[in-house]
Amino acid sequence: MMSIEPEMKRRFRATAITLAVLLVVVLLTCVPYLVSIALAEGPAQDNTADASPIFGVTIPAGYRQWELIAPAEEAAPLDELRAIVGNQTAIDAYQAEKLPFPDGTILVKRAWKRKQSPEFVSATIPGVATTVQVMVKDSRKYAATGGWGFGRFINGKPVDEAQHRTCFACHDARAKGHDYVFTRLAP
Amino acid sequence: MMSIEPEMKRRFRATAITLAVLLVVVLLTCVPYLVSIALAEGPAQDNTADASPIFGVTIPAGYRQWELIAPAEEAAPLDELRAIVGNQTAIDAYQAEKLPFPDGTILVKRAWKRKQSPEFVSATIPGVATTVQVMVKDSRKYAATGGWGFGRFINGKPVDEAQHRTCFACHDARAKGHDYVFTRLAP
Repeated sequence: MMSIEPEMKRRFRATAITLAVLLVVVLLTCVPYLVSIALAEGPAQDNTADASPIFGVTIPAGYRQWELIAPAEEAAPLDELRAIVGNQTAIDAYQAEKLPFPDGTILVKRAWKRKQSPEFVSATIPGVATTVQVMVKDSRKYAATGGWGFGRFINGKPVDEAQHRTCFACHDARAKGHDYVFTRLAP
Repeated sequence: MMSIEPEMKRRFRATAITLAVLLVVVLLTCVPYLVSIALAEGPAQDNTADASPIFGVTIPAGYRQWELIAPAEEAAPLDELRAIVGNQTAIDAYQAEKLPFPDGTILVKRAWKRKQSPEFVSATIPGVATTVQVMVKDSRKYAATGGWGFGRFINGKPVDEAQHRTCFACHDARAKGHDYVFTRLAP
């Protein structure tokens, strides 16, 4: 007995140390992912000063890392290049061609003035950033507007209430058949 | 002594079990990330049939999930909308404004024919996908072409050698001052 007990103790200790090391390695490897889970999925609802009027929608943290749904272009007078990205809920719904989009879907449209490339005459590239526009699906909270909350931001600040009153009317008139969303997943 | 030994054994066992459970939880949480690390960073070099002539560059797995660097537009006759995405090495270099791009950088340009939105007359959206174009930085392997390997793909298959001979000449003539890369990070 006296020779077995220390042997078992050593084995337990070795196992515990191995597991602890593995845990630390995996945790360190996954730090970016764990941070992105913490930050990227939900809108940052804490800063109400930067929330849109009517809807209370904010710019979601980490949206620049989100997957591209499609680029787009808007003719004059806006004269913009755009890129629409979505959180994982949005991407999953697009890939499954699932309509309506589930609650938790967030779409973000980034927009820039169009600018001719200085290096390639036929190419147009992003100039200054103009607006960031956000759609958040919450079928109960936003029941009056097709389940969508809207936010339109310039330099990180929401535009006025009058502009936000125009969002749903246009999406309702033109994109009702696609759950009020214009953008399709680029092939 | 007889009462302390079993107590220590219990504690070691409890510690080992706790660590094992934590490890399993973290591993399960991070499965998508670990899979993406395994799949998404490197070009899939296994399928040489789908590798570009001259350079042996392939379409990297998981590039659709990569972060957007910028959208772009190409005038007629190509008449395309484009989106340039990059792997994490590329994004880190862009954000740090680091030139030259480090080895391991991969840039992918997705391209689509421009199409008028059926719902919004002033909007142009992606039509059919045209090419996928890839740049891979390996300063030793591609020393003769500024450290970059090129791949141009249509329907997943590389175009011919003659087309691949034109890649570096153009990037060299027009974008040498930005490590042969046209695209800048959209603001």
